[in-house]
Amino acid sequence: MHAPSSDVSSENLAELAADLLTRLRARAPRVHCISNTVAQAFTANLLLAVGGVPSMTVDPDEVGAFVASADALLINIGTLDQGRREAIDVAVTAAAGRVPVVLDPVFVDRVPTRAAFARDLARRAPTVIRLNRAEFATLAECPPDAPVTQAVQFYANACGTVVALTGAQDWVADGARLVTLHNGHPLMAQVTAMGCAGSALVAACLAVEPDPWRATAGALVALGVAGEIAGARARGPGSFVVEILDVLHGLDRVTLTQFTKVS
Amino acid sequence: MHAPSSDVSSENLAELAADLLTRLRARAPRVHCISNTVAQAFTANLLLAVGGVPSMTVDPDEVGAFVASADALLINIGTLDQGRREAIDVAVTAAAGRVPVVLDPVFVDRVPTRAAFARDLARRAPTVIRLNRAEFATLAECPPDAPVTQAVQFYANACGTVVALTGAQDWVADGARLVTLHNGHPLMAQVTAMGCAGSALVAACLAVEPDPWRATAGALVALGVAGEIAGARARGPGSFVVEILDVLHGLDRVTLTQFTKVS
Amino acid sequence: MHAPSSDVSSENLAELAADLLTRLRARAPRVHCISNTVAQAFTANLLLAVGGVPSMTVDPDEVGAFVASADALLINIGTLDQGRREAIDVAVTAAAGRVPVVLDPVFVDRVPTRAAFARDLARRAPTVIRLNRAEFATLAECPPDAPVTQAVQFYANACGTVVALTGAQDWVADGARLVTLHNGHPLMAQVTAMGCAGSALVAACLAVEPDPWRATAGALVALGVAGEIAGARARGPGSFVVEILDVLHGLDRVTLTQFTKVS
Repeated sequence: MHAPSSDVSSENLAELAADLLTRLRARAPRVHCISNTVAQAFTANLLLAVGGVPSMTVDPDEVGAFVASADALLINIGTLDQGRREAIDVAVTAAAGRVPVVLDPVFVDRVPTRAAFARDLARRAPTVIRLNRAEFATLAECPPDAPVTQAVQFYANACGTVVALTGAQDWVADGARLVTLHNGHPLMAQVTAMGCAGSALVAACLAVEPDPWRATAGALVALGVAGEIAGARARGPGSFVVEILDVLHGLDRVTLTQFTKVS
Repeated sequence: MHAPSSDVSSENLAELAADLLTRLRARAPRVHCISNTVAQAFTANLLLAVGGVPSMTVDPDEVGAFVASADALLINIGTLDQGRREAIDVAVTAAAGRVPVVLDPVFVDRVPTRAAFARDLARRAPTVIRLNRAEFATLAECPPDAPVTQAVQFYANACGTVVALTGAQDWVADGARLVTLHNGHPLMAQVTAMGCAGSALVAACLAVEPDPWRATAGALVALGVAGEIAGARARGPGSFVVEILDVLHGLDRVTLTQFTKVS
Repeated sequence: MHAPSSDVSSENLAELAADLLTRLRARAPRVHCISNTVAQAFTANLLLAVGGVPSMTVDPDEVGAFVASADALLINIGTLDQGRREAIDVAVTAAAGRVPVVLDPVFVDRVPTRAAFARDLARRAPTVIRLNRAEFATLAECPPDAPVTQAVQFYANACGTVVALTGAQDWVADGARLVTLHNGHPLMAQVTAMGCAGSALVAACLAVEPDPWRATAGALVALGVAGEIAGARARGPGSFVVEILDVLHGLDRVTLTQFTKVS
C-alpha cells in the first residue's frame, strides 16, 4: 500500500495536489477558456474557487490578446460555431510554444465533422487532452477490445501529449508514466460541465507546474477528492454543485492525504 | 375529490409522473436542446438530475447529426440570433416524424418578428408547445375575454399539438383532454430558466412516453411537486434552485401521491 | 459617526437602499441586458431576486424592440463579438434620452481594441459606468499616482456620467457628490459575474429612482450588505452564490440600517 519510492503513490499524489493548490492560491494564474456556453459559468466559478483568474472571450479579434497575457489556454469544443472555430485557430497559434494548452474534445463521438476538427487540433500538440471514454474511442480510433491503459499510452505517445481519460476512474498517461485515480463520486456525472471544469483545473495547474503529467494528475486528484467529499455531503445534484466549489476552495493537505486513492 | 375512473385524477397523474421518472432514470434519453444562453446550464442540470442526457450545440452544421441520434428535441427561442434561426430550421427538419419536438416560444409578446417566427414553427406541428400567459395571448391571438381553458383547447386543435400553458396553475390540453395542475410555488417565477427547463423535462418525457398529452402532464406534475417541496425548504431564490434539483433527483411515488393536486 | 445633515450618512444610504428595494419589488422594472454568456444566468437570477424582469437577447434585429419596452439597459462588453457590437449600437440608440443606460466595460485592460470600443461608448453618455480598478485605469487613462477619489470625480465630470468604481471598497461619484462604501466580502471577488450582476442591479435601480447617483449608491449599498451577510453565512464560494441571492431577496430596512457603512 505504502510505496515511498514511487512517484505515483497515493501519498505522493496527495502532496502534489496540495502543492498545486497552494501555488494556484499564491500565483492566481490567468486561464483563458474558449469553452461552450453551457459550461462557462461553472468553469469560471471553479477556476475562481481555486484562485485562478478566468477569461472567456471567443471573439477571433480579441482572443489573441487574451491568450498573449494568459498563463494557460483551454480549448473546449462544445457548442462549436463558426466564430469559435476561428477563435480556436487564433488562440492555438498565439499559445504555440509559450502557453500550455488543454484540449477538451466534447461530444466528438456524436458528429464526424467535429471529430475531424478535434483530430486536427490533437495534431497541433496540445499539452494535455482530457476526455471521456466515448470521446476517446472516437478520437483515438482504438480497437474496442484494446485494454484501456494500453490504448491511452499508445495515444499519448502518438500525439506527444498527456492524455487524461476520466470517468468512474481516471487514467493519466504521457506515454511513459501512467496513474489510475480512484477518487470521485457518481454525482460528478449528473451535473453539467464537470468534465469541462476539470479540464480548466488541469489548465490552471499547467500554469504553475512545468511537468504536464504531474500537473494533470494533481489537478484530477484534487477534483476527485473534492467530488468525493462533496458527494458525501450533498443531498442531490443541486447541492453537489455548491459543495464541490466550497470543498475545492478550502481543500488542504491533511484532507488530500486522507482521501487520495491512486494505483 | 376521488375520481378513480378518470384519467386525470390526482392519483392517476401522480402514478404517471412516478412512472415517467422511473423510465427516465432507466433509459437516459438524449435530449437535444436549441436553447438560449441564459437557460442552458440550468436546463442541462435539470435534465441530468432526472437521468437525461442533454446536448446543446446550436451550430447549423452540427445540429442535424445531434438531432439524428437524439430521442427528443427542444426548441427554445430566447436569445434568438441568425445562427440559431438556421439551426432551428435544420433541427426541426431532421426531427420531422421521428423525434418529438417541444416548442418554447420565449418572449414572443415582446417582438413582432419573433412572434412571426414562432407562428411559423407552430405550423410545423411540434409535439408540444409550452408557454406562459403573455406568450399564449400573442401566439394564439385569442380574444382577451375568452375563457383560458376554451382558448387553450381551441389552439391545441388548430395546431394539432399539445398545449401546456404554465403559471400559477398549469393547463395541459390536446384539443380533447384537458387537465389543470395546481402544484408549484411562487419562487418558480423568481428564478431564471424555470419555464425553459420545464420544457426540457417535457421533451425528456416525450422520449419515454408515446402519448404526448400524458408525457406533458406527467412532466409538469413532477416539476410542480418538486417546486412546491423545494419552495417549502428554500430560504429564497438562491437555495430554491439548489433544492428543486435535489428534490427532482430523488422524487418518488409516495411523495408524488401525497402532493399531486390536479382537476 | 452620526451625520444627520449629510446626504451620505450610513443611515441615509441604508434608508435609500431600503426604499429602492421596496420600489423594485413593487414596480418590477424590465431591465434589458446585453451581457456576456458567462454572466447571463447569475445576472438574470439577481434581477429576479430583487423583483426585476430581465431580458437578454443580443440579436441586432430584436434588441431595439426589447429596449423600447424596457425600463433600463445594461451594456456589458464581456464575450464581445460581432453580433454584440451591432446589438450594442442599436440598443444604445434606442435607449437614447429615454431609457437609463449602465456601461460595464469588462476587461478593457486586456485588449486595446476593446478599450477603444468602450471609450466610444463612454462618449455616448451612459447614465452610469461601473468598473473595477484595472478597468478604470485603462478607460480613464488617469496617471497611476492620482488619488483615486480625485480621478473618479474628474472622469465623472469629463464623461458627464456617474462613475461607480467597485472593489474592496466602492466609490460612487457624479463629479460633485462622492461616497465611499465599505460593505462587502472577499468572496464577492471569488465568484464570477458579481460585478456584472452589480451593474444590473444599478440598472434596475435607475428604473425606479430619477437621481442616478442615488440609484447607484443605493444599489451598491444593498449589494455590499447582502455580500457581507452572505459571506458570513457561506462555507465557500459555492454556498456564497446561493446565500447572496437569498439575502438580497429578503433584505429589509432594519438589516440595512444595522450593516451599512459609508463615508
